[in-house]
Amino acid sequence: MAKPKAHRQNRQYDDDDEFTTCNWMEYVLVVVLSCSLLVAALILVLFWTLYSGVGYGWREGNFEKQFNLHPTLMIAGFVTLSGFSMLLYRISRCCRHIFVKLFHTFFHILAIPCIALGFYAVFDSKMLQSHNHFYSLHSWMGLVTMGMFALQFVFGFFSFLVLLCCEGATAACRAAFVPIHASFGTTIFMLAVATCLTGLTQKSSKLYNYSEISKKNEVIIVNALAMVLVALGIVLSYVVNRHSLRANKGSIISERL
Amino acid sequence: MAKPKAHRQNRQYDDDDEFTTCNWMEYVLVVVLSCSLLVAALILVLFWTLYSGVGYGWREGNFEKQFNLHPTLMIAGFVTLSGFSMLLYRISRCCRHIFVKLFHTFFHILAIPCIALGFYAVFDSKMLQSHNHFYSLHSWMGLVTMGMFALQFVFGFFSFLVLLCCEGATAACRAAFVPIHASFGTTIFMLAVATCLTGLTQKSSKLYNYSEISKKNEVIIVNALAMVLVALGIVLSYVVNRHSLRANKGSIISERL
Ligand code: HEM
Ligand code: HEM
Repeated sequence: MAKPKAHRQNRQYDDDDEFTTCNWMEYVLVVVLSCSLLVAALILVLFWTLYSGVGYGWREGNFEKQFNLHPTLMIAGFVTLSGFSMLLYRISRCCRHIFVKLFHTFFHILAIPCIALGFYAVFDSKMLQSHNHFYSLHSWMGLVTMGMFALQFVFGFFSFLVLLCCEGATAACRAAFVPIHASFGTTIFMLAVATCLTGLTQKSSKLYNYSEISKKNEVIIVNALAMVLVALGIVLSYVVNRHSLRANKGSIISERL
Repeated sequence: MAKPKAHRQNRQYDDDDEFTTCNWMEYVLVVVLSCSLLVAALILVLFWTLYSGVGYGWREGNFEKQFNLHPTLMIAGFVTLSGFSMLLYRISRCCRHIFVKLFHTFFHILAIPCIALGFYAVFDSKMLQSHNHFYSLHSWMGLVTMGMFALQFVFGFFSFLVLLCCEGATAACRAAFVPIHASFGTTIFMLAVATCLTGLTQKSSKLYNYSEISKKNEVIIVNALAMVLVALGIVLSYVVNRHSLRANKGSIISERL
């Protein structure tokens, strides 16, 4: 394992040399764009609920109200919080690396209650209506996404935080996990976006059977939200894969794992 | 631009050294898995059409028959052919690089009539029913995906084949385009998978309103197809991003662009 490590260190300094004005402009543009899109997704889903006039609720005999918690919390957890967490890790150019890691973990920890509650909201509302569970394509994809998220969280927590207790002994092992964790993470984000898109498709395809103008407008809101999610998928996969955007401020190797 | 090029060449030889038995096993596993999934997607969509008892047709007054061409051709073009093309480019470890490039182009050229006809099939069948076009989320995503595919094809064709006419002069320029073309390509594949998933969701969510057992079985087929597409998204993004799987047989740099 000696070779790739020496190699990566070498690359870091290479990149540092190359961080030109042009790189800075790309960096700023991409960070502003990603943050705006992440916030826009959350605002649009809140706006959608308010616009539809249904709002939120819990077990008030109004399943629609309880259901609305599902898309909102899922987008908050799987898209906005997870997205910020990934972005933060890749682009933060200040602070010691351990703090960046802790922030990355913290944002993902915040995402967990959102996801759990978002899932419980729809599960419970379907149970009250005594429907079948998990027959739709969306719910299958949702289960896969949540399962992979759980795996990734537990695995990442152990390998990058708990194993730090014996830094030296686990460095090579942790170094080998980094690219796996990173590519698995991007994949989960893409899967989450795809799951949201199928959920939105289900909602939207019911809406455009109505003839009211307010429902037609709702379709536009849902489709706009979906387009924001598509844009996020494109922009975030660009950011995390783009080498010249990484923060590699000559930090020592063991700190970056 | 001198630095990164020297650097990449360096990496190539690094990787060559590292291609161990373990790498070979991973390589074979991943190639077999990807090919099986690519073929499975096509078989499942054909099987679905046959199972539903509708079959294919064109303007026979049966819109369902004509519609069926849409998912089949889209999956053939955007998933199976494009997927094989990407895979082939990344993993082929024999032949001169120019042949690999020509095969990569050839597979994408084969995908074009599939996509064009697949689009025309649904567009025409909707026109005959005098429906509105492009109101659904799926159709918006479809337009984005097809637009990006067209851009990528034209741009790639010019920069990697036409510009070869003056090899030396355009090498640095082409080298700069390579990572952009690659990441854009993966993104388009993911988008295509997501578009297929929304299309399948629309179909599947209509199917499970019926009570016939044959329709219930159709839902299972559709969901299984969707799961194959999800698996493809995961496996192919792994393959194309995994450095140690790349074919870098000491070919000279100008040939690899
Ligand atoms: C990554 C985020 C998401 C995940 C992991 C997820 C997961 C799930 C799961 C597992 C179910 C099945 C619950 C049950 O059967 O008891 C479900 C249902 C549902 N979700 Fe989501 N969801 C997500 C985002 C969304 C979004 C953004 C919408 C947009 C409206 C949505 C709409 C629906 C609908 C309409 C249902 C009920 C019908 C059905 O079972 O398909 N979901 N979701
Ligand atoms: C990447 C592949 C795909 C692309 C680019 C794509 C694109 C499109 C476009 C642009 C339309 C709108 C046509 C119009 O309004 O005139 C459409 C319609 C449709 N597609 Fe696809 N499609 C793809 C795959 C699929 C798949 C796999 C299915 C699975 C069944 C599907 C199901 C449908 C349905 C049901 C419609 C008609 C209803 C609607 O407009 O949403 N599509 N597609």
